[in-house]
Amino acid sequence: MTSRIFSLALFIGCSCFAQETANLTEQYRATADKLIQAALADTEGYNRLEYLCYRIGNRLSGSPALERAITWSVEQMKAAGLVNTRVIPTKVPHWVRGAESGKILTPLEEPLHMLGLGMSVGTPPGGITADVVAVSSFDDLTKLGRDQVQGKIVVYNYVFTGYGSGRNYRQSGASRAAALGAVAALVRSATPLAMQAPHTGAMEYDETQPKIPTAAISPEDALMIGRLCADGVPVKIHLEMGAQMLPDADSGDVIGEIPGREHPEQVVVIGGHIDSWDVGQGAQDDGASIIACLQALALIHNLGLQPRRTLRVAFWVNEENGGRGGVAYREFVGDQIKNHVVALEMDGGAETPRGFGASVDQNSMDIIKQIGKLLEPVGASEITGGGGGEDIMPLIRDGVVGMSERAAGTHYFDWHHSEADTLDKVNPEDFRKSVAALAVMSFVLADMPEKLTAAAAGGRRGR
Amino acid sequence: MTSRIFSLALFIGCSCFAQETANLTEQYRATADKLIQAALADTEGYNRLEYLCYRIGNRLSGSPALERAITWSVEQMKAAGLVNTRVIPTKVPHWVRGAESGKILTPLEEPLHMLGLGMSVGTPPGGITADVVAVSSFDDLTKLGRDQVQGKIVVYNYVFTGYGSGRNYRQSGASRAAALGAVAALVRSATPLAMQAPHTGAMEYDETQPKIPTAAISPEDALMIGRLCADGVPVKIHLEMGAQMLPDADSGDVIGEIPGREHPEQVVVIGGHIDSWDVGQGAQDDGASIIACLQALALIHNLGLQPRRTLRVAFWVNEENGGRGGVAYREFVGDQIKNHVVALEMDGGAETPRGFGASVDQNSMDIIKQIGKLLEPVGASEITGGGGGEDIMPLIRDGVVGMSERAAGTHYFDWHHSEADTLDKVNPEDFRKSVAALAVMSFVLADMPEKLTAAAAGGRRGR
Repeated sequence: MTSRIFSLALFIGCSCFAQETANLTEQYRATADKLIQAALADTEGYNRLEYLCYRIGNRLSGSPALERAITWSVEQMKAAGLVNTRVIPTKVPHWVRGAESGKILTPLEEPLHMLGLGMSVGTPPGGITADVVAVSSFDDLTKLGRDQVQGKIVVYNYVFTGYGSGRNYRQSGASRAAALGAVAALVRSATPLAMQAPHTGAMEYDETQPKIPTAAISPEDALMIGRLCADGVPVKIHLEMGAQMLPDADSGDVIGEIPGREHPEQVVVIGGHIDSWDVGQGAQDDGASIIACLQALALIHNLGLQPRRTLRVAFWVNEENGGRGGVAYREFVGDQIKNHVVALEMDGGAETPRGFGASVDQNSMDIIKQIGKLLEPVGASEITGGGGGEDIMPLIRDGVVGMSERAAGTHYFDWHHSEADTLDKVNPEDFRKSVAALAVMSFVLADMPEKLTAAAAGGRRGR
Repeated sequence: MTSRIFSLALFIGCSCFAQETANLTEQYRATADKLIQAALADTEGYNRLEYLCYRIGNRLSGSPALERAITWSVEQMKAAGLVNTRVIPTKVPHWVRGAESGKILTPLEEPLHMLGLGMSVGTPPGGITADVVAVSSFDDLTKLGRDQVQGKIVVYNYVFTGYGSGRNYRQSGASRAAALGAVAALVRSATPLAMQAPHTGAMEYDETQPKIPTAAISPEDALMIGRLCADGVPVKIHLEMGAQMLPDADSGDVIGEIPGREHPEQVVVIGGHIDSWDVGQGAQDDGASIIACLQALALIHNLGLQPRRTLRVAFWVNEENGGRGGVAYREFVGDQIKNHVVALEMDGGAETPRGFGASVDQNSMDIIKQIGKLLEPVGASEITGGGGGEDIMPLIRDGVVGMSERAAGTHYFDWHHSEADTLDKVNPEDFRKSVAALAVMSFVLADMPEKLTAAAAGGRRGR
């Protein structure tokens, strides 16, 4: 009996859900199919991405390449038929790497596969030569204490269990080591793949501690140094880093729109970040995302579609080392934030798209799932909680519904923040599917009569 | 009816085979199980490998590190209880890389991820700056002709379809380009994995052509340059290489033995090569192999086993860029070659062992398969044709039975000849399984009354 009642309840539940689903799904199926067809046949988007990667290259905040990318992006938005294109100006931190190198001196003279962490100070001229202590955790470091850390280079050879574990040591490893008198900190790269590639990323100083230089090292070097130290073999390293902070530079977010036919004042904004680290080409992080967002709007425009609300694409600046672009955008929006219907960020790479995350209440989640069903042809129909993004956090904090595009992420952290984040990592077919998913999702969000309601708290994606 | 007869035939066939199999398999099962048990519990072998990788490091022919490795290897063989340990002296080519670097100048100033190919000449002081032509094949190059190649740097952006495809361009790409007036040749690395890692390897000059400098570049750079050239975008590169040939250096093979209890004059030799390229640690290529072979004999000795024939381990030198060690060993053997029963080389990495390849006739293949069955507990029972190896080719050519250890090879060419060929790539459990497989196979080969018969032609494994 119990089981029969349960089955009946399930049946009723499914039935209701199916009926609701039919609503938006059926209403937009023809439009969605047109958009998907256009996206899967599109070559212009990938050509734009090629230009960004191969002709402009990586684009750290403050670099001439970033400014070239911004100028080029405005041109591309105009060429795509978008209007109200503009740069929202902001100052950005201007960190420069300078020349850098590392060498293991003892027990063997060997290259150290290192890459300075973003925002690190440099070494004194001529570099630092010091003995090494290796730790596998902050607890280890604390146990060693000042006696054993003073004057040493600390190597964090933590067990990588996911990007979060690594980011923690990258961000605060230097100041935690400096608090015990260390002269430099080297951190195992936050990546699952050991291919002697160091992966950079932002670090942050605790202003109450001395600022010591800090760099990522390859997983191989971290493992080796960790093992040698555990074996009681003295390890000595020489490190030279020319890194420095220059005065803030002028830069800006780039936006462009398809104005709403009925509620132009209401805005659905989708985008990613235009800046990247100063290695590789910023292809997966986050070039492919911004170009996919732009191309989604380009295709909507090409098909002569004009949604009820304004659909805006944003290339936020300085996501990697400051978040100034997100703040500048929030200021630009001002009190019109009440008309910001959804902010959708794509910043998890452009591997096979799976769907979208959304920080919304249950009713809104059901609505988004109806839209998601339109993306079954490209395998991107999975709708989950946890939508957000570094650049849209200032909007989410002020009540805007946050969403994120979600991709497979199989190899994302193999390439992320390294020399290997290059165009060839973006599979053209996956890229076109992302364009399709973004075009359908953003168009329906901007066109449907329904409005979404934010959940209590927004999610964050790794930067 | 037909099917019933067929089944009966199969049944009889299986039955015969099972009976034959029982022969060596049953005879040696107890010994094999003891060896496997010892190998799977062994930590000494991996510790030796750690020392080779972390304390001696890479060991190119002519380098001081190779000579340290040779001295250390003799000590290790003695410590393992082997007798008749000795160095078989030989001169080896002495190529040195010197300082090298590359830069893409046009269309963007970017680092070129390059690694000079072994035996290449250097550039003139100050380097070479030249426009690039990209080709995807030798046919492409021929079609371009001298008019378009003269004075240019040729980039081989071939489609990688396996190590063989890449080795071809690496070995003869420079001379083929020089024949048309090129000033340098850059070759996509012979690897399936694009992680901005260049992979070196030996090249060979055609003595009738001018010698031009040549280097491997990362798959990413090859793809980018290929695409830019296809788009008609001019690409200019600056290349500096300090590579040069020095006079031949003194070096040698290292051997040690468990003397045969009945036929000490008859020899089963197993080994790999002690030299490596001058990047990474030569862990998979071929450090793990030589240490696994040594450890196999160490365990046989520890268990108090003494085979009917002499069991010898050989660390051949100069496999990577000359093959002098294999030739020296052949000369050392002299007319005693008639007593060389089997030569077994391991030079395909130390990932999960699968079994062995053997260049033998059908009867001998059946015998080896009986031994293979003993390796089912470690998953290494697969016996196939095609056994051989660069170092044992001089023996095989003179009639000795050639065999090779075969491993999974899933990631071997991701790491091969690159900075990433490091200790962490050798899984300790896989390593111990290899030791087990080598111990059982070599002991039975040296102990069984049967003798193997070589097939008509031996195989070759990639170097």
